[in-house]
Amino acid sequence: MARWDPGAEQRLRKAALELYAAHGYDAVTVNQIAEHAGLTRRSYFRYFPDKREVLFAGSERLPAAVIEAIRAVDPAVGPWPTVLQAAAEVGELLAEFAENSDVRRAVIAATPELQERERTKLASVTAAIRDGLEERGVPAEDAALVAQIGAAVFQNAFSRWIDGGMKSSFRSCFDAVVDSLRGGLFELDD
Amino acid sequence: MARWDPGAEQRLRKAALELYAAHGYDAVTVNQIAEHAGLTRRSYFRYFPDKREVLFAGSERLPAAVIEAIRAVDPAVGPWPTVLQAAAEVGELLAEFAENSDVRRAVIAATPELQERERTKLASVTAAIRDGLEERGVPAEDAALVAQIGAAVFQNAFSRWIDGGMKSSFRSCFDAVVDSLRGGLFELDD
Repeated sequence: MARWDPGAEQRLRKAALELYAAHGYDAVTVNQIAEHAGLTRRSYFRYFPDKREVLFAGSERLPAAVIEAIRAVDPAVGPWPTVLQAAAEVGELLAEFAENSDVRRAVIAATPELQERERTKLASVTAAIRDGLEERGVPAEDAALVAQIGAAVFQNAFSRWIDGGMKSSFRSCFDAVVDSLRGGLFELDD
Repeated sequence: MARWDPGAEQRLRKAALELYAAHGYDAVTVNQIAEHAGLTRRSYFRYFPDKREVLFAGSERLPAAVIEAIRAVDPAVGPWPTVLQAAAEVGELLAEFAENSDVRRAVIAATPELQERERTKLASVTAAIRDGLEERGVPAEDAALVAQIGAAVFQNAFSRWIDGGMKSSFRSCFDAVVDSLRGGLFELDD
């Protein structure tokens, strides 16, 4: 696994993003990405199975990170604050890998196949939240609802954070979304 | 478009569901579905482009129905109650087509390709809610958040309704989910 070049994976991800942003996802080949990163096609396939997964590297670790973060919350804490606490923690972790997130998001938004992959990823995070809550004894229906809303809040916070040029912390964006939930936005005047 | 057989589409949908449930989605062909419905392969393709879309017939009308339902809400009503009102209405509409929803759900849950399609459909509904809110002057970030949470509530209510054998009304399941949101489930004890 290429111990001699620890920066290769990172270079490939950067090269892919640059080429996808410049020429469009469909027009770029694995050969071009590898060349742009100063590597061979064979090296590319040491890290990624295809031209799609280079955009989602690391995301396969998210569900496990979510479950672990939920397990770390005091069992006396209710379902919703548990999700908030775990989501904020996982978000901080994600923020470490968030370089070029704005470019990545634009590339994904332009290609239905990538949007599908992104939704699949989010669904696996939602399922992890649900499983983590069920493990704590939350009834299945409630766990599913809290998980879906938690994932929506997480996604929205991440999006705001990228919109703001990642200048503030992820946590402050997350707190802003939670404040919207508590405050006027969800006021029920019916 | 087969004016001579107004029940054909419905028969094909029923036949597809029965075969998918019995043999698994991957094992069933269009020919088998057509035969099971007493029709020809050629008739099948008058109604559906492939073996997947027979499971999602009618869903292409959902985004427009959502936008329309949002437009019908008094402009003075805030974003969240607007979504609740529109979602309840669209849900009632959906309920009319909900025969065999439990079988359909089981078939989809067993096949990643179908789950992807289902998520894409939900994403288009979420986008319709967001667009409908922006049309009412709701700021983009708020519209996105309310739309995502509205879609989660809708999906959860639909799921509960199917779990309950569709014996109660969709509206009562929807109201139960909204009550969970208002009540203890989302209590913030942090």
